[in-house]
Amino acid sequence: MSTIQDVAALAGVSVSTVSNVLNKRESRMRPETLARVHQAINELSFRPNQSARMLKTGRMPMIGLMVPSIANPYFGLLARWIESAALAQGFGLLLCNTYRDPQRERDYAEAFMAQGVKGVILGSALQADEHLKPLIENGLAIVCLDRGSASDGLARDFVSVDNRRAGLLAAEHLYSLGHRHVTFVSAAAQSLNRVARLAGAREAAANLGMELSVWLGDAQATYEESEMSEVGHVAAATLLRTRGESTAFIGVNDMLAIGLMAGLQQGGLRVPADVSVMGIDGIYLGSYLSPALCTVRQPMQEIAERAVEHVLSRMNDPAQEPRESIFQPTLVVQPSAGRRGKMPA
Amino acid sequence: MSTIQDVAALAGVSVSTVSNVLNKRESRMRPETLARVHQAINELSFRPNQSARMLKTGRMPMIGLMVPSIANPYFGLLARWIESAALAQGFGLLLCNTYRDPQRERDYAEAFMAQGVKGVILGSALQADEHLKPLIENGLAIVCLDRGSASDGLARDFVSVDNRRAGLLAAEHLYSLGHRHVTFVSAAAQSLNRVARLAGAREAAANLGMELSVWLGDAQATYEESEMSEVGHVAAATLLRTRGESTAFIGVNDMLAIGLMAGLQQGGLRVPADVSVMGIDGIYLGSYLSPALCTVRQPMQEIAERAVEHVLSRMNDPAQEPRESIFQPTLVVQPSAGRRGKMPA
Repeated sequence: MSTIQDVAALAGVSVSTVSNVLNKRESRMRPETLARVHQAINELSFRPNQSARMLKTGRMPMIGLMVPSIANPYFGLLARWIESAALAQGFGLLLCNTYRDPQRERDYAEAFMAQGVKGVILGSALQADEHLKPLIENGLAIVCLDRGSASDGLARDFVSVDNRRAGLLAAEHLYSLGHRHVTFVSAAAQSLNRVARLAGAREAAANLGMELSVWLGDAQATYEESEMSEVGHVAAATLLRTRGESTAFIGVNDMLAIGLMAGLQQGGLRVPADVSVMGIDGIYLGSYLSPALCTVRQPMQEIAERAVEHVLSRMNDPAQEPRESIFQPTLVVQPSAGRRGKMPA
Repeated sequence: MSTIQDVAALAGVSVSTVSNVLNKRESRMRPETLARVHQAINELSFRPNQSARMLKTGRMPMIGLMVPSIANPYFGLLARWIESAALAQGFGLLLCNTYRDPQRERDYAEAFMAQGVKGVILGSALQADEHLKPLIENGLAIVCLDRGSASDGLARDFVSVDNRRAGLLAAEHLYSLGHRHVTFVSAAAQSLNRVARLAGAREAAANLGMELSVWLGDAQATYEESEMSEVGHVAAATLLRTRGESTAFIGVNDMLAIGLMAGLQQGGLRVPADVSVMGIDGIYLGSYLSPALCTVRQPMQEIAERAVEHVLSRMNDPAQEPRESIFQPTLVVQPSAGRRGKMPA
């Protein structure tokens, strides 16, 4: 059986380049390099290690991933990277949608454990997570995404973008473009990441002497998979009439910002000539809007890889101290946020 | 322990209404009804059957779902409904991304089987699926989505929207709006559903005496999760210069149409005043564009439920004859497709 080293030698590239191809990290790769690696893989009938390992041992251990809804493209993107990172370690991925329901999280986690699953990554950030206590006490390794650490003494890990800083970067960018009245649009049911993003925007506004209004929509289960976008769309319908002096809007996440921008445009406002719109997250869909969505990006791949690393480590040593990994967000300048133009009426 | 009947009685609704709430089929429900059901669930501390069943039996059997990439919101939506349908039958969902790689499909399927998984739903539609033969012979129940039946004698089932008819409906709608020159935009790597959609559009064009051009982009692994939208975006850059007499475009799927429409708009064309754009699939994201995306909708929930039904049935009786379920698509009229206006230069 040929090895990754054989592939690298035949293709005339480094082993890490082959590894990048195998793990679909190809975005910065030259097409010719990619083609050479694929050719070498085919010529050698190379079967990547992880699959080989799964097959050789005759079993595929699993980790669980719980997200509010995989129909939300943000969580789809997260799951794509977590699956990739898990497979690289020889683990399969059990997926469940929780609709932010603690009871459902616990029921699923118990069923996972009965199935031999020893670790779970929680993609949501519920404010209250006492329901995790019995699971952790029964030995389940848990990594919580998109929230900072807690001081409740429960042994679990945390991996997140710095959400406060993401909100801060968004507000600062709008200030730098000349905006002095900004509205932050979010949903009333506050998950921890939403609270932190708003706090960051408030902090920047206070520092800079910019006025920040807040519009909180009502996230409803009846909106189903379109929940965040629909909150943005509903916000736009109101804000078209009542935006006051605001010349720019921050959506608490890209999915909300997408609905918000469409609603403002459908109401006749030009983006960015009349109003600016920003999101937070940096999901690729924002690039395929007109204008492309200005946003603050999370390093999703790095976050996913760290989460898998933490959960596997905790599965090996459930008693270890809680760890927290915080990643820095980056501003993605796009034309949906522009220089302040005319003041709206 | 209280039952679903208790909840229905207390809320003053039918058992099927409660079931709809439990399975998140709430879109056509009045808010007051929904609130009453939730209140009854809380008052009775009702735990839905499916979780109770999983926990009572102490195990959660699993089915596998393979999709090209869960980061594509179309597959995210599909996975959301399949998870829901599987859970209602007491099954958990193992997820994997195959990037349309037959080797990866086979490796994963073998690892699933080693883990005791007896059924898999394939969300993609590869042209060649000889790689499924050894899996089926070893007893794996397979349901293929988004393609019609094959005559190769392999015992598996097929569930799909009528893709030919979806293409036909799109072309007919544009004709009814006065368009006589339409370009169909797709990707060169033709999965079976893409071939069928194009065939349907060609058929309508031939019947109606409408001219149909075809633009085939190059789907590249380097585009990663944004592949379809990027193909549309690249197409727009060319079509802005070379669209000839075409006044309307059909994207082979909504994700491609999203990138296509954004690219045309970024190039200065107004949709639908200058050109019309349609997609196919009916994913909810299309509603949050400006203008909202005209499309042809697949009944995703019904398709997902039928797929789960078929795979469980075949797991019980692997030798049964192949079955095929074809669902009819419906036109979703939205403003991105409008009456033919001025002729482009």
